[in-house]
Amino acid sequence: MTGTARKALAEAIATFLFVLSIIGAVNSGSPLTPLAIGFALAVLVYSTGHISGAHLNPAVSVGVFLRGGLSVVDLIVYIVAQLVGAAVAALVSAALWPAGKAVEIETGPAFLVEALFTLALVWVVLNVATSKDTDGNSFYGLAIGGVVFVGATTVGAISGGGFNPAVALGLSISGQFAWSNLWLYIVAPIVGAAIAAILFRVLNSDDAKKIGA
Amino acid sequence: MTGTARKALAEAIATFLFVLSIIGAVNSGSPLTPLAIGFALAVLVYSTGHISGAHLNPAVSVGVFLRGGLSVVDLIVYIVAQLVGAAVAALVSAALWPAGKAVEIETGPAFLVEALFTLALVWVVLNVATSKDTDGNSFYGLAIGGVVFVGATTVGAISGGGFNPAVALGLSISGQFAWSNLWLYIVAPIVGAAIAAILFRVLNSDDAKKIGA
Amino acid sequence: MTGTARKALAEAIATFLFVLSIIGAVNSGSPLTPLAIGFALAVLVYSTGHISGAHLNPAVSVGVFLRGGLSVVDLIVYIVAQLVGAAVAALVSAALWPAGKAVEIETGPAFLVEALFTLALVWVVLNVATSKDTDGNSFYGLAIGGVVFVGATTVGAISGGGFNPAVALGLSISGQFAWSNLWLYIVAPIVGAAIAAILFRVLNSDDAKKIGA
Amino acid sequence: MTGTARKALAEAIATFLFVLSIIGAVNSGSPLTPLAIGFALAVLVYSTGHISGAHLNPAVSVGVFLRGGLSVVDLIVYIVAQLVGAAVAALVSAALWPAGKAVEIETGPAFLVEALFTLALVWVVLNVATSKDTDGNSFYGLAIGGVVFVGATTVGAISGGGFNPAVALGLSISGQFAWSNLWLYIVAPIVGAAIAAILFRVLNSDDAKKIGA
Repeated sequence: MTGTARKALAEAIATFLFVLSIIGAVNSGSPLTPLAIGFALAVLVYSTGHISGAHLNPAVSVGVFLRGGLSVVDLIVYIVAQLVGAAVAALVSAALWPAGKAVEIETGPAFLVEALFTLALVWVVLNVATSKDTDGNSFYGLAIGGVVFVGATTVGAISGGGFNPAVALGLSISGQFAWSNLWLYIVAPIVGAAIAAILFRVLNSDDAKKIGA
Repeated sequence: MTGTARKALAEAIATFLFVLSIIGAVNSGSPLTPLAIGFALAVLVYSTGHISGAHLNPAVSVGVFLRGGLSVVDLIVYIVAQLVGAAVAALVSAALWPAGKAVEIETGPAFLVEALFTLALVWVVLNVATSKDTDGNSFYGLAIGGVVFVGATTVGAISGGGFNPAVALGLSISGQFAWSNLWLYIVAPIVGAAIAAILFRVLNSDDAKKIGA
Repeated sequence: MTGTARKALAEAIATFLFVLSIIGAVNSGSPLTPLAIGFALAVLVYSTGHISGAHLNPAVSVGVFLRGGLSVVDLIVYIVAQLVGAAVAALVSAALWPAGKAVEIETGPAFLVEALFTLALVWVVLNVATSKDTDGNSFYGLAIGGVVFVGATTVGAISGGGFNPAVALGLSISGQFAWSNLWLYIVAPIVGAAIAAILFRVLNSDDAKKIGA
Repeated sequence: MTGTARKALAEAIATFLFVLSIIGAVNSGSPLTPLAIGFALAVLVYSTGHISGAHLNPAVSVGVFLRGGLSVVDLIVYIVAQLVGAAVAALVSAALWPAGKAVEIETGPAFLVEALFTLALVWVVLNVATSKDTDGNSFYGLAIGGVVFVGATTVGAISGGGFNPAVALGLSISGQFAWSNLWLYIVAPIVGAAIAAILFRVLNSDDAKKIGA
């Protein structure tokens, strides 16, 4: 298998495993829950990055697109694959865990932290996984998973800790997120991702890529 | 020492240390137990990988065999060495900790999570430790140990968290797993490993190796 | 954007994200708080190091200056950028969390541990991120974040765990540190950083750089 | 500074910081104590390895000597430097924390786990930091610190978790270990280190170094 279909299958498989791990981690009640979520992303980025870049997150794909590292066709395909993977994970999780109780959030603070920590996530992704200056490093997965661990620990109590519209879809299906808040978990991360992409381009103007390259 | 005997001794030593660490971690009652299990695997993979590939797990060896990275003779030798190492660890552990009480599991959910998380484990192993695209990286041990940490945290309460027939043998001897469930801890991981190997071959058709190479 | 302005913007953004994460981590009440703080630094060092070196800490900038890796102009610009980033983070945090209650400290022990662990931090930074012998490694962020995790865990109860005058400014604004102790959180880290820089130069006399190089 | 004096100073500084971190971690009462101890070793190995190899442990130095990676003069100098660093750390710690209460141990199980986990530690050190097959990797510090984290979590309740005669000296001064048990914390780790060195030589006979090389 080659080309876009191969990348889409990889994004779907890895997002499936990521969202299944998140739902399991939340249901575990373990004090290590946010660390397990961060490590789940780290190991999937390390194992899938060489195939598709391992975005596993529509906001990341938007950020990479705006940075010039993804074509518009691939952007759409990636997002569809991520949403399918997340939805299937949520459906499978119903065989393992009871439906979740939706976290209650205040719109203002939740929007702010979802935007800020997705900004941090996409800042990290663009700099460790798409910059010519850090090419060939072995830390990209740990850095990308690490920022989600930090976000889940520090602001999970404020927003529930999405930072990812595909995760938000999965957690809406499995019950941890309220459907009425789904817009926030889509819009705020994309706002954060767009700001991160702009900052990346301003700070790394010598590392521009044409969109689609 | 060279060749298969050298690899077998390395697999036996490292699986011995891995299973001893698992039994100790479970007996510690520490909130860090699943992280200690994941790190135990990570450090043994890093220290033994250059000798034998550091499978320490018959399901991983089956996955590497199906991917074309292990001969059938080595497959059998590896599995025997892993089972011996695990059994000796369980016997030694009897001098240190009391016999465990077997976790009770429901067959359906336990089979599902053992298969799914061994699929994730073997997906990670094949992509970070046998792919030409990630050759020479420094993250393989962290990624492989990390996925076991994630599995132990997220689904440990459902299946006990084996993902490894050799570990299951050791924990059956030391009492944490019931002998009547041993079949599940063997069959489900091998099913997961086989699916992971098929996915790897489909997604990395340009990276095929002949069996025995 | 190029040159010093680019570096200053990067230092301000990353210090903003670091201090916001610290304030969030402290407010989370999570048992993983010190680990989240260490990982926050690690991921920001990995993502920002290629732009500015990712000091995010006036004591680190002083250490790098004394080691001969930063010009006096850049030293001043870096410190201003770090203080601005930290102050903005503290102001933004007021929209998310209530004002903190200042930790009470004993001057003698607090000064000692702030100096000792900033010494350890700058020892690590100079050896993993500025030494010719460790050039090109992939562990620098984990090592630098790791030492802050160790310090926050081990001596956080004695000093509150600053090791960073910019963090101390932010936490004074957000209320976790008392303004009357700010001098200690500035002087002790700089003392520790200076000792670390001297030790580095003594031990790596073959790796001298002229100041400003 | 060059040669043996440089290495001795580096060993003394890093062992001082390591033992100070251990005593602080034990006094913190944090659930992250064993992880902080493992990370303390990791960051010091990463920052000091290029100077002295960063043994920070007489048992490791014995293992490296038996593997043929250290001269007998350096072995003696390293051990003295490690003991001095550990003792000074224990004396400084008296200004920060009250004297510890010595852990009670049973001689048989404590000897067994001290020997087994020091065997694991030296197995890891020799394979990740002295083998030609893993030369140039970025994971050695994480692997070495990781094994101490695993040992402290899994068998800390049995032996107190020394795995290191210099640490044992420090903890005897600070009160966590009983002086009457010091012989065990010296002999058992050296037995484990010697077995690890023999296993390394048997398994890596193509990687022999003459003693003193």
